[in-house]
Amino acid sequence: IAANFFGPQKNTYIRVSLPAVCFVWQIAMVVLFGVFIRYDEESDEKGWNEFKKSHNITSNIENDFYFRYPSFQDVHVMIFVGFGFLMTFLKRYSFGGVGFNFLIAAFGLQWALLMQGWFHALDPVTGKITIGIESLINADFCCAGSLIAYGALLGKVSPVQLMVVTLFGVTLFAVEEYIILDLFHCRDAGGAMVIHTFGGYYGLAISWVLYRPNLNLSKRLNGSVYHSDLFAMIGALFLWMFWPSFNSAITNHGAGQHRTVINTYLALASCVLTTFAISSMSQKKGKLDMVHIQNASLAAGVAMGTAAELMITPYGSIIVGFCCGIISTFGYLYVTPFLEKKLKLQDTCGIHNLHAVPGMLGGFVGAIVAATATEEIYGKEGLIETFDLTGKFENRTMSTQGGYQAAGTCVAIAFGLVGGVCVGFILRFPIWGDPADDFCFDDEAYWELPEDEETIPPVLEYNNHMVNKHHDTHESQFSLEES
Amino acid sequence: IAANFFGPQKNTYIRVSLPAVCFVWQIAMVVLFGVFIRYDEESDEKGWNEFKKSHNITSNIENDFYFRYPSFQDVHVMIFVGFGFLMTFLKRYSFGGVGFNFLIAAFGLQWALLMQGWFHALDPVTGKITIGIESLINADFCCAGSLIAYGALLGKVSPVQLMVVTLFGVTLFAVEEYIILDLFHCRDAGGAMVIHTFGGYYGLAISWVLYRPNLNLSKRLNGSVYHSDLFAMIGALFLWMFWPSFNSAITNHGAGQHRTVINTYLALASCVLTTFAISSMSQKKGKLDMVHIQNASLAAGVAMGTAAELMITPYGSIIVGFCCGIISTFGYLYVTPFLEKKLKLQDTCGIHNLHAVPGMLGGFVGAIVAATATEEIYGKEGLIETFDLTGKFENRTMSTQGGYQAAGTCVAIAFGLVGGVCVGFILRFPIWGDPADDFCFDDEAYWELPEDEETIPPVLEYNNHMVNKHHDTHESQFSLEES
Amino acid sequence: IAANFFGPQKNTYIRVSLPAVCFVWQIAMVVLFGVFIRYDEESDEKGWNEFKKSHNITSNIENDFYFRYPSFQDVHVMIFVGFGFLMTFLKRYSFGGVGFNFLIAAFGLQWALLMQGWFHALDPVTGKITIGIESLINADFCCAGSLIAYGALLGKVSPVQLMVVTLFGVTLFAVEEYIILDLFHCRDAGGAMVIHTFGGYYGLAISWVLYRPNLNLSKRLNGSVYHSDLFAMIGALFLWMFWPSFNSAITNHGAGQHRTVINTYLALASCVLTTFAISSMSQKKGKLDMVHIQNASLAAGVAMGTAAELMITPYGSIIVGFCCGIISTFGYLYVTPFLEKKLKLQDTCGIHNLHAVPGMLGGFVGAIVAATATEEIYGKEGLIETFDLTGKFENRTMSTQGGYQAAGTCVAIAFGLVGGVCVGFILRFPIWGDPADDFCFDDEAYWELPEDEETIPPVLEYNNHMVNKHHDTHESQFSLEES
Repeated sequence: IAANFFGPQKNTYIRVSLPAVCFVWQIAMVVLFGVFIRYDEESDEKGWNEFKKSHNITSNIENDFYFRYPSFQDVHVMIFVGFGFLMTFLKRYSFGGVGFNFLIAAFGLQWALLMQGWFHALDPVTGKITIGIESLINADFCCAGSLIAYGALLGKVSPVQLMVVTLFGVTLFAVEEYIILDLFHCRDAGGAMVIHTFGGYYGLAISWVLYRPNLNLSKRLNGSVYHSDLFAMIGALFLWMFWPSFNSAITNHGAGQHRTVINTYLALASCVLTTFAISSMSQKKGKLDMVHIQNASLAAGVAMGTAAELMITPYGSIIVGFCCGIISTFGYLYVTPFLEKKLKLQDTCGIHNLHAVPGMLGGFVGAIVAATATEEIYGKEGLIETFDLTGKFENRTMSTQGGYQAAGTCVAIAFGLVGGVCVGFILRFPIWGDPADDFCFDDEAYWELPEDEETIPPVLEYNNHMVNKHHDTHESQFSLEES
Repeated sequence: IAANFFGPQKNTYIRVSLPAVCFVWQIAMVVLFGVFIRYDEESDEKGWNEFKKSHNITSNIENDFYFRYPSFQDVHVMIFVGFGFLMTFLKRYSFGGVGFNFLIAAFGLQWALLMQGWFHALDPVTGKITIGIESLINADFCCAGSLIAYGALLGKVSPVQLMVVTLFGVTLFAVEEYIILDLFHCRDAGGAMVIHTFGGYYGLAISWVLYRPNLNLSKRLNGSVYHSDLFAMIGALFLWMFWPSFNSAITNHGAGQHRTVINTYLALASCVLTTFAISSMSQKKGKLDMVHIQNASLAAGVAMGTAAELMITPYGSIIVGFCCGIISTFGYLYVTPFLEKKLKLQDTCGIHNLHAVPGMLGGFVGAIVAATATEEIYGKEGLIETFDLTGKFENRTMSTQGGYQAAGTCVAIAFGLVGGVCVGFILRFPIWGDPADDFCFDDEAYWELPEDEETIPPVLEYNNHMVNKHHDTHESQFSLEES
Repeated sequence: IAANFFGPQKNTYIRVSLPAVCFVWQIAMVVLFGVFIRYDEESDEKGWNEFKKSHNITSNIENDFYFRYPSFQDVHVMIFVGFGFLMTFLKRYSFGGVGFNFLIAAFGLQWALLMQGWFHALDPVTGKITIGIESLINADFCCAGSLIAYGALLGKVSPVQLMVVTLFGVTLFAVEEYIILDLFHCRDAGGAMVIHTFGGYYGLAISWVLYRPNLNLSKRLNGSVYHSDLFAMIGALFLWMFWPSFNSAITNHGAGQHRTVINTYLALASCVLTTFAISSMSQKKGKLDMVHIQNASLAAGVAMGTAAELMITPYGSIIVGFCCGIISTFGYLYVTPFLEKKLKLQDTCGIHNLHAVPGMLGGFVGAIVAATATEEIYGKEGLIETFDLTGKFENRTMSTQGGYQAAGTCVAIAFGLVGGVCVGFILRFPIWGDPADDFCFDDEAYWELPEDEETIPPVLEYNNHMVNKHHDTHESQFSLEES
């Protein structure tokens, strides 16, 4: 019913709307960047020379760039190749998966620099936002929320709708991030709360509003083929391998980044084994399912998003990974079909099991680890540094911190659900060029496709083959039975 | 006419020429490396210990290795996976695209270490060239010029010809680089001039000389299939993601590298949106074209090659990206077909739109940004450092610098065009094993190919399928004749 | 005969065994990590603050994390994407290639942290193993031994058997590594001996014991298709590009890492040219073989595993690469078929030519370079640092060092062969769910496969096509209009 709300006249014509959105919004970026964005003191030529003098720094290696650039590039790969190729698994929507991911991330990161800048880095005196390598990482993170939401909508929306999803997604992200990280003063380095929980529920809520009762008309294309699963595996592996960089990219210099990497690495390894175990158990001959391997094995990275920078201990990390593999794979087996049948929620990539639930779990794990932090474990200095207990938060107790962490998770869920429902209704206007129910999961709608793969083989051989075939047919139909 | 200049007897037999070229040139490398190449003081065991003492350095982290290694590896990925996979888009020339790219880059980087060493790092006392991490980056850069040229020739030349293209390409590169960077004292960190402008025009000039009037005999293979476009997307994305590393790999430590990354990152993001916009506008239903997405979205990286390390400002970068997406996509839509029809210039990958024009543009943008540089923006010290205004260039004014930058761009164009025409004529000798006009874009010429994809499916299922088919056959034999 | 030792009743049912192995072993990991594994002083919050004070360190950049993290991530990519995708070349075993590689590496690295920890990092006072970034790199290295062994077994064993191969492989690795690196005090940064020689012979010995005389029943699937070769090329290139990081990841800070990168980079480049030369020479029209390009071009990385950190000189590196390309390609052309026919040794990926022989060669090259090291070349201080000639090794002469290096190579071979034969016999028990001889190289055995690629084409076009077809046929238009 929902999909036909405004009548059945679906049309994927986007020749006006897509260029208009791209041009107008990009021009807006130019203007806003001109007004607001400047280099920070570590990327400005004059600024850095002055900074070095004022901070008595003798070596350029102290520039934050050298602490964070390798992680930044890994995060960048996750955003564009990781998320992009993970969404190429559909047999005829691989262009859309990787291509629209590219488009919305490229827009989202610019908008994120502005939105996050206004909330976190606006100089009250000059009225300018200054940016450096950490801003770029945060902008990539901010995009991730909307890319996660895309996972639930994959194949069912137009690129124009995705731009709208990203515009509002980045905006909502900046607000909830301000509440969680600034007002609640939570720690959430890898964004279990602000990125994954928010992004997951945001996408699910949108998908729920956009429910298509007749989606089974596109059923034939809602699946993978052998090679599309391999392309998706590229995305999955780059996400899996670089997740330690994702979680550690903006943590504290020194032991902070170091420990975050170790914890994430261990949790992810552990998660792989339980994912394989449950996947095998669920099929009558013990065969494995690529959907689980590609997705559930990543859940541990999500669930460590908050706790990885804390002293969760190596075995604590492994336990989190152990549980996540089980929970996420069960989600793909039972919860996604349940959501579709009972809640009328169509979640193409299963982001409920990869982002929403593990993210929420990660938020609460973080709350527990924070609540149990002691000076004995972190050292006095370390505790203050790790939780940034300075200024007005100087006297916050660890149990209070844990409470705020838990509250932050709830804020992320709320922003995702409410924001998603609102954006979903906006997307139901019949102006966005989304495909009809029998034209989903099909690149034909938005891409000029090359001719079919069948016609590839070298023409000479092919022709010979054809000639022989016809030859046979004319002469003796029976010979076909042997061919 | 040109292609048949020496008669029609084309033969792709390379069993003597390719091994001969590989062996002889590689042996030459061994000898020349033995005579000339040594470790520099930061990679030599004894040298580094002495360097640390003489420079009063206490920590190994001050070794240039730690400033540049992450960028080096990203550049290395761009050269081999980026350029390599970008050229796998043809349906039956993917082996040649990625494989020959591999061969010529592996040769080119060795030859580049020597050529660049002789021009830039030859110690007049010892007669030795010393190499370190920056030399490796420069060698990779130097290869890039020839790999760009390969883009115009893709599918129409033999690997032996490509080795010749690379031998001369690297040689010409070293000379023009010496003129532009040393004599003119230009700044060109990401090589908008020395790499992209030169490489682009070099390839175009060669392709023009090698014009094949009957290339439409191979038309059936001059296009992509669904999965080959996805392979190309891997290359495109790795180029796009790592371009900030490309432009910043050899810029100044500290704020220099930091700022270059920010500028390149922003320009590339902006470029994606205008590319999508123009691509969509150009098709009657607004459908997107993978050729544009894979290529034009990269043009901003090229165009920022010179200016990225300068104080072009974040919004300046976005404006450059904005324009490049438009110009490059228009190039693919109108200029490439025009060049082919009117100028008899066949440019397989469209390097005119991705490298030649954006590179030239980047050279002039760099000239403008250099000419407008002031002490107010850079600080006195920063201005000297950024433009290396020391020694005999101490008193150069910024407008002079801008003039030299513009002149440098013209030198790059001239070297590309003249060098390319000469090399093109060399390649027209009928000894190189290039394919006939009806055998272009076909891996069959130079690769042992596996059997066709059609025969893959599991034999059991395949047999069943066959049986059913035959069943049909009994019912209506005639339909088979047209199938 | 061997394969049918226990009768012909092969069954690939693994629904009990695989989940059981995954769960039990992962639970064991949780317990053992709980008992033994802790953060080291550079990743522990309190520990790092104390370490900085006690070592008078003022900057977090001195944390070992910043020296090694970029290399670690490159190694991580090699293990999961490099090895994984290199093994996707088979037309119908790509899921198994990349998927089982994922599983066993994820298990292996956890087990490696424990095994290597017990042998190298167990604190005798606290009874704990402390881990940091170098431990993670070593764990990845340790897995590599078993992943290499998988190359020989690809397509012929069950995932449960692979888990057993990994369990024993990691265990044997830790012991031989203890003997070679600790007792013999060898240098082997990139593991020519401990990783490649051991892993290669380990896999070959297992494969020899598991010889399948009727493997030709699966012959139809023991080969590549066009696109599977491209997937494999992704793996090959990531291995090739990141091998400098592999060899330098745990070498000495400063000039050590710097030089290792240069040497490996040059050797690999040189190897590519001789690989192309021999591959072309071996085919009657000079056509190239993807198997050689994907594999033999990597042999130089293996062969530089020991010597790369030493002062082998740039031209020494190029000579090693030159020889490796020739030896390895000849191996693929003549030795692998010989081994299969005469020694009854089926080596799916040709690890004999890529790991075993180049690894052994690398061990002996390392021995020679070590034996010829002098104070004149390294400096007094440098010689001590490079070979860690401290404590009881203070007075070891360089020729003694060379002797031990050579002996170390022999230990690696012995451990590989003996260990492999033992593990091979364990794997012959009829309980592991390995496939029958006519069911090898087939993902059908262990994976739920998507429908065939043939059924992909967009339904609308397909229908139109059908309609036209039928129209032409003039047979029965009515039934078709509904199709």
